[in-house]
Amino acid sequence: MKTAEITSTGNELLQGEVLNTNASYIAEELTRKGITILCHTTVGDDIVALGSALERAIERADLIIVTGGLGPTRDDITRKAVALSCQKKLILDETAFSHIKETYHCRHMEMPTSNVRQAMIPEGATLIPNKTGTAPGFSLKHDNKEIICLPGVPGEMRQMFQEWVLPHIQETAVIGIVTAHRKLHVFGLPEALVGEKIEHLMAPESNPMAGTMVHEGIITLRITAEAREEAQARTLLDKAEEEIRQLLGEAVFGRDEETLEEVVADLLKKHKKTIAIAESCTGGLVGDLLTNVPGISQHLLEDVVTYTIKSKADLIGIPEELLRKTGVVNPETARAMAIAIRNKTGSDIALSITGVAGPTSPHPREPVGLVYIALATKEGVEHKEFHFSGSRRWIKLLAAKNALDMVRLKLLKM
Amino acid sequence: MKTAEITSTGNELLQGEVLNTNASYIAEELTRKGITILCHTTVGDDIVALGSALERAIERADLIIVTGGLGPTRDDITRKAVALSCQKKLILDETAFSHIKETYHCRHMEMPTSNVRQAMIPEGATLIPNKTGTAPGFSLKHDNKEIICLPGVPGEMRQMFQEWVLPHIQETAVIGIVTAHRKLHVFGLPEALVGEKIEHLMAPESNPMAGTMVHEGIITLRITAEAREEAQARTLLDKAEEEIRQLLGEAVFGRDEETLEEVVADLLKKHKKTIAIAESCTGGLVGDLLTNVPGISQHLLEDVVTYTIKSKADLIGIPEELLRKTGVVNPETARAMAIAIRNKTGSDIALSITGVAGPTSPHPREPVGLVYIALATKEGVEHKEFHFSGSRRWIKLLAAKNALDMVRLKLLKM
Repeated sequence: MKTAEITSTGNELLQGEVLNTNASYIAEELTRKGITILCHTTVGDDIVALGSALERAIERADLIIVTGGLGPTRDDITRKAVALSCQKKLILDETAFSHIKETYHCRHMEMPTSNVRQAMIPEGATLIPNKTGTAPGFSLKHDNKEIICLPGVPGEMRQMFQEWVLPHIQETAVIGIVTAHRKLHVFGLPEALVGEKIEHLMAPESNPMAGTMVHEGIITLRITAEAREEAQARTLLDKAEEEIRQLLGEAVFGRDEETLEEVVADLLKKHKKTIAIAESCTGGLVGDLLTNVPGISQHLLEDVVTYTIKSKADLIGIPEELLRKTGVVNPETARAMAIAIRNKTGSDIALSITGVAGPTSPHPREPVGLVYIALATKEGVEHKEFHFSGSRRWIKLLAAKNALDMVRLKLLKM
Repeated sequence: MKTAEITSTGNELLQGEVLNTNASYIAEELTRKGITILCHTTVGDDIVALGSALERAIERADLIIVTGGLGPTRDDITRKAVALSCQKKLILDETAFSHIKETYHCRHMEMPTSNVRQAMIPEGATLIPNKTGTAPGFSLKHDNKEIICLPGVPGEMRQMFQEWVLPHIQETAVIGIVTAHRKLHVFGLPEALVGEKIEHLMAPESNPMAGTMVHEGIITLRITAEAREEAQARTLLDKAEEEIRQLLGEAVFGRDEETLEEVVADLLKKHKKTIAIAESCTGGLVGDLLTNVPGISQHLLEDVVTYTIKSKADLIGIPEELLRKTGVVNPETARAMAIAIRNKTGSDIALSITGVAGPTSPHPREPVGLVYIALATKEGVEHKEFHFSGSRRWIKLLAAKNALDMVRLKLLKM
């Protein structure tokens, strides 16, 4: 397979209510595998429009990936459109039907009869299992071309793409020039500074070549290397990575799909350390991020979201009135929260966050975006002051990421 | 103008490195003006691919909006592709050229000669000024169709769309049919069942017409109504909403951009109630969601993430050993956690969640996906048992949304 097209269906995409993240995701993954993307097409829940998009895609590309339209309601038209375009009948797939029935059974719920629609796939198609939802996908070969249909729900689509589509493509791939990619994630430096330091790697003709993108405060360097063989491309990437790490130091925290919270969790595991958290303005976000990492329960002892002054005073062990006078967004409160949660739980590291997420602030002395983050260990307490700006969610996110990064830098020195 | 297509060009879009936010933005704006979007197409920086996408779009739609490919470098091919498709020459537009020279002058920079490319537009085209960047847009009429080309940089594109394209569309709009939209959000019913109950509203010819989409366990019904005037369309939407609310009852929790956590926060405000939370497997996610809503600090007293057995035992006030024997994923623990956090904080409502997010479970008696959610109020305690499946993140999300929904349903009865 050399070329591919991505066809998405759904009125919510066509009318712009929902961003088409599926097309980008698939395009990026296929490009990484050396497949050339020719076109993305988005049509509505309209069997004629989808049919004509499919026919054109089949004319041009070796592989057509369709997302959406596999649900149980009458506006889910992908099964029918693909069957019509390839002149196949829709038949009931018993495995798919059992899976749907089983899913309802496991959830202790009764299956609505219209769910049978989801088990109808074109004759001759191969079922692609969906572990998360009821909508199975399928793959159909037609005129030396292959059409792969996946559900539109991004979580389900991505899991099926990783577990079925990618291994399947690997098997049928063609050999030529190999492109290898690597991502390095950077935290704590301005993007412009990162750009200046690695400018020579960003020239359009350089190989490997790097580009920057920024998401939620994290700068990601996307490095691409081309070579005749994968091993050569990888060696180029290794050299570029080494150079970038030397230039940017500890600000480089992770690689490829690694997240900041995974890196923190891995360091906790590696150093056999425990952590406890007292959050305020982040409202549980730091705990939520850390507990996305499997196995963290061995290291995260407790996370208290002390969202009121009273709950902070209770934690610290001082009268509420006193805290009300001094205010709760200051270095002293942050430090006292960290010490208190460490004393309460006996953790190796204690993290605390107090700040104002906005959109308004109760006190002029505590402006929106002012955040204090403290760390307590047996060696003592330290804190940092931050001045963020932006929406409530943005301030929460930046505070949480900076808190995790402080823990990471601390663990690197432990 | 009744129908439109959106054509985007750029390798970074085609290869999935950058999300195509322009297409969604334009689609949403045009839909709001009553124009029917037929298709979005994305191609690379490839004059043949763009040319053939343009020709098909011109065949089908009244209005074609092209974004991207208007830069000063050799891979910016939109001007040439449009000129070829419409059999026009490219000519130097003096106004455009002056603007580009002026922009460089203001930045105290010398203009590279290649920038003259950006002032070349098809003969007969109308210039669309770009206040932010150097790339002007243009509009060209061809065969009773109109092609509007805008730059790909979202900030520039949006400004030009608001200041030139929207007023232009208003002038030339066919007075006739107005389309109005509304979204209703549903929780706690399977999508297929929702589809069965409102099937008559999902028929392709019905007006108003409803469609379903699912995101993070929430089913959204998108209702579209067409009429000669906006007020009529709104009346149709009101009627459809009333009917759907009768058919689906309390499962309908919100409208348009409302989120489940906002609805819960609004109910807490309306009923002047406080809440405290003890989370386990959700790891802070319920707190994170609720604290995305401004003003929640008046109602959320505290959220404890009791992630270890010891921290649960401490909260409940029983020996750790006892809890270790009975296990922590059962109705008794969930109920005890809810009672304990309510006693500790004096909240009106106490919510607790205990379960196994996976990917593995420490005990066979506690399978991955088993979750108990309990609510305690002055009237007593209740709990629900859930069997979720999917990734760790997915189980956390479903548990958090179900927890919020239990609070919502409780508040409706208070």
